[in-house]
Amino acid sequence: MAVALRLDEIVARLGGEIVGAGDTAISRIATLEHAGPGDLAFLANPRYRHQLASTRASAVIMAPPAANGPAAAILTSQPYLYYARVAQWLNPPPMPESGVHPSAVVEGEVAATACIGPNVWIGPGARIGADVVIAANCSIGAEVEIGSGSRLAANVAVYPRNRLGARCLVHSGVVIGADGFGFAREADGAWVKIPQMGRVLIGDDVEIGAGTTIDRGALDDTVIADGVKLDNQIQVGHNVKIGAHSALAGCVGIAGSAVIGARCTVGGAAVILGHLEIADDVNVSAGTLVAKSIKEAGTYSGTVPFLEHGDWLKNFSRLRHLDAMADKIRALEQRLAALEKKS
Amino acid sequence: MAVALRLDEIVARLGGEIVGAGDTAISRIATLEHAGPGDLAFLANPRYRHQLASTRASAVIMAPPAANGPAAAILTSQPYLYYARVAQWLNPPPMPESGVHPSAVVEGEVAATACIGPNVWIGPGARIGADVVIAANCSIGAEVEIGSGSRLAANVAVYPRNRLGARCLVHSGVVIGADGFGFAREADGAWVKIPQMGRVLIGDDVEIGAGTTIDRGALDDTVIADGVKLDNQIQVGHNVKIGAHSALAGCVGIAGSAVIGARCTVGGAAVILGHLEIADDVNVSAGTLVAKSIKEAGTYSGTVPFLEHGDWLKNFSRLRHLDAMADKIRALEQRLAALEKKS
Amino acid sequence: MAVALRLDEIVARLGGEIVGAGDTAISRIATLEHAGPGDLAFLANPRYRHQLASTRASAVIMAPPAANGPAAAILTSQPYLYYARVAQWLNPPPMPESGVHPSAVVEGEVAATACIGPNVWIGPGARIGADVVIAANCSIGAEVEIGSGSRLAANVAVYPRNRLGARCLVHSGVVIGADGFGFAREADGAWVKIPQMGRVLIGDDVEIGAGTTIDRGALDDTVIADGVKLDNQIQVGHNVKIGAHSALAGCVGIAGSAVIGARCTVGGAAVILGHLEIADDVNVSAGTLVAKSIKEAGTYSGTVPFLEHGDWLKNFSRLRHLDAMADKIRALEQRLAALEKKS
Repeated sequence: MAVALRLDEIVARLGGEIVGAGDTAISRIATLEHAGPGDLAFLANPRYRHQLASTRASAVIMAPPAANGPAAAILTSQPYLYYARVAQWLNPPPMPESGVHPSAVVEGEVAATACIGPNVWIGPGARIGADVVIAANCSIGAEVEIGSGSRLAANVAVYPRNRLGARCLVHSGVVIGADGFGFAREADGAWVKIPQMGRVLIGDDVEIGAGTTIDRGALDDTVIADGVKLDNQIQVGHNVKIGAHSALAGCVGIAGSAVIGARCTVGGAAVILGHLEIADDVNVSAGTLVAKSIKEAGTYSGTVPFLEHGDWLKNFSRLRHLDAMADKIRALEQRLAALEKKS
Repeated sequence: MAVALRLDEIVARLGGEIVGAGDTAISRIATLEHAGPGDLAFLANPRYRHQLASTRASAVIMAPPAANGPAAAILTSQPYLYYARVAQWLNPPPMPESGVHPSAVVEGEVAATACIGPNVWIGPGARIGADVVIAANCSIGAEVEIGSGSRLAANVAVYPRNRLGARCLVHSGVVIGADGFGFAREADGAWVKIPQMGRVLIGDDVEIGAGTTIDRGALDDTVIADGVKLDNQIQVGHNVKIGAHSALAGCVGIAGSAVIGARCTVGGAAVILGHLEIADDVNVSAGTLVAKSIKEAGTYSGTVPFLEHGDWLKNFSRLRHLDAMADKIRALEQRLAALEKKS
Repeated sequence: MAVALRLDEIVARLGGEIVGAGDTAISRIATLEHAGPGDLAFLANPRYRHQLASTRASAVIMAPPAANGPAAAILTSQPYLYYARVAQWLNPPPMPESGVHPSAVVEGEVAATACIGPNVWIGPGARIGADVVIAANCSIGAEVEIGSGSRLAANVAVYPRNRLGARCLVHSGVVIGADGFGFAREADGAWVKIPQMGRVLIGDDVEIGAGTTIDRGALDDTVIADGVKLDNQIQVGHNVKIGAHSALAGCVGIAGSAVIGARCTVGGAAVILGHLEIADDVNVSAGTLVAKSIKEAGTYSGTVPFLEHGDWLKNFSRLRHLDAMADKIRALEQRLAALEKKS
């Protein structure tokens, strides 16, 4: 399915400087280690520099200066970004034939250029835009709007009244717009459900990973801004707001009403508690529990090292007595000061 | 879709005291900040008290004493619970028309007042009660029983022989009754599967959030008692028991055979290890790993603070040497005592 | 559905030594506590030994020596493994009738002995092997291969071009082959998607728990070796490799390009960061964050104890000042040494 490109064609569109033969043809992107003839490899992480000498790639994308090894190269200050662009060019997502599969049940309005797969259900009042692809066994609730060029992989569920922008990519198992977790408690401990009447509003160019769930707002809406990238199995609570171009890795949990700024990155399995704010350009390390607001850009961490089990037992059991240790140090300081005074 | 209510009608049914005009009509619940004319707002969290002065709501639910600001108010000692009740009254869940969609495949027994959506499969011997709603693309295994008034959102899977009570709400992506994780190990490290023959028994009025998975028991059953509320992406291992009216926030993991008492709350992303017991009325903080039984009611926590990355590196690397630090303190105490004796 | 077996039949096939009447018939496995006449119970965990005296089981599997209590016993050095084998024998997975349900949409090639359930979609070029069972509402992408005897529960999604071996068991809500999380960043913070062109290659006898997601590789493949057991809600990033017979408990997250050895065990909710290697025969404790490679077999842990909330506050807030505590200890040591020299 891949197209073939010449280095000079690539540079004409994407910039960069050619070293070697401009008419070198490539048809595939590969790693330095596994590339063969006809492949374009890339060097983005310096730890793989030694592979330049042995790669069989026809050409390599790399930062200047040119290195010995590959027959040809494209020099660019941002080889990883360049690799992304060439890879997109070489691997356009397959566009299935437009039309509605006969097994689909469509009660809403579907653009003529959209593709609706087998056993899909689209509820009344839903509006599916141009060039949208909805794969098999998706369930799209009433009055949902999906912007042009968005793609939903198989087995996605979107609850009624939620909105996705243009060019979104939604992976299998995603659930958009389920009820937020809102209950009031009665005197005997029983819970009274608070109806969740808000929506989920998703911007353009958002990617949502497999198994991720985004709850609808209680009264106001849950909002995911343009260009946000969510990895797999992320939980987004009701009324959360995520700013533009923030990227969250797998298994992150975000409790209700948290507000995350723009261009943030959140490492895998981090947890963000509710009703707090994170400023723009904050990086949260993987596994960190964010229990209060972060007001300044920067990197924040809060995980413990792992140890061989015996060492762990010995050291970490001390955590129960840390306050007592601090008290002992203070007592030592006082006793020592008294002695020093005396002597 | 909302109905309109007068304050005196509300108070006649739900109690509380009216301040201002009893014939004030409201048709919607809204936040103090976003409410407009015709809206009923509420003040439950004191931090929003300053919004009373500027709210455009026609009336506000609040604890006594009455405050200046809104034109009218309902005074009640529990404004959040009151809000929940009014919101339910104003927003009854939509009841789709009963009947089986022609694309559904029904091999079991479905009550005449139930609603079975498009492309649903209901296996042989299953029994679906009165007023049950099963939305698109759900798969209901053989001999499953679902009690009256329960609702399953789209794309839910229930394995054979499991049981849900009445008035449950099950969100999309939920899986009920998959095999528990049980294997015996052979000498060479290979695993022999232990057949998982138990069931999942779910009580009445249980809500299960999107993407949550509840495994069937190995020999005995996994049991979720009445009124339990599970948020999204919770994992419930085989043979777990959760007591009545306990509420668990998103991303909680519960390992096999753990027993959780009644009226417990578990914060998001907490982890409860297997084969332990948690007493009634225990609160586990978000992110806490419960590694042994909890025998008394109370609140339990076990998370670490997060820091700016440099501060974190400096402080948390010490955890590897906590035992050595304790030893140093003890040595200092002994040396100091010797000196003190001498002087 | 269970068959009835005599103890001597069982021992003839599985080994072990009979105590009591070899013609004792059993038709079900049960726990010591809940067993009744006709049941075979087992004692694997010594903490349940006291139940031998009161069990109503017709026979008990246990390690020698024989104990008083049950009427009959099978003695074996590995009672848990023996129990697994007998339970499998007594509870063969039900084999539904082969054939394609009329509501399924099959564009690929399906073996005559396979069973394809209601509303399943199988894409063009897919190849489904002998005796495969694919339950309702599964979506199988183009060119997927599924080996003989594998079973997919309802509502599973497999993306195009991925491969499963023979005798795999895939639970509901599983997503195989969604895009890995790969983006390059532009100067303004926007993300450029890196096409994910690799596959997921899954070996034989692999079990994948409900809601687990396994991403396809970016350029090379994600590889799950033979006999691996994955529990529910596990996230496997792109290009991860998991060695044969490793078993991972629920809610584990594995970031991209991590390599896990053979026969490893990973406890629930552990997190394994990307681009690192874990040796064969490593055990990672539940809740541990593995942030660097583990080069030697052994058990590794990194979790903190939980405490009553007040104790937790008092002790864990000290973590922010651990470095300062270490400095204070060093200062005390120096001052004390100076005093000791003087006196």
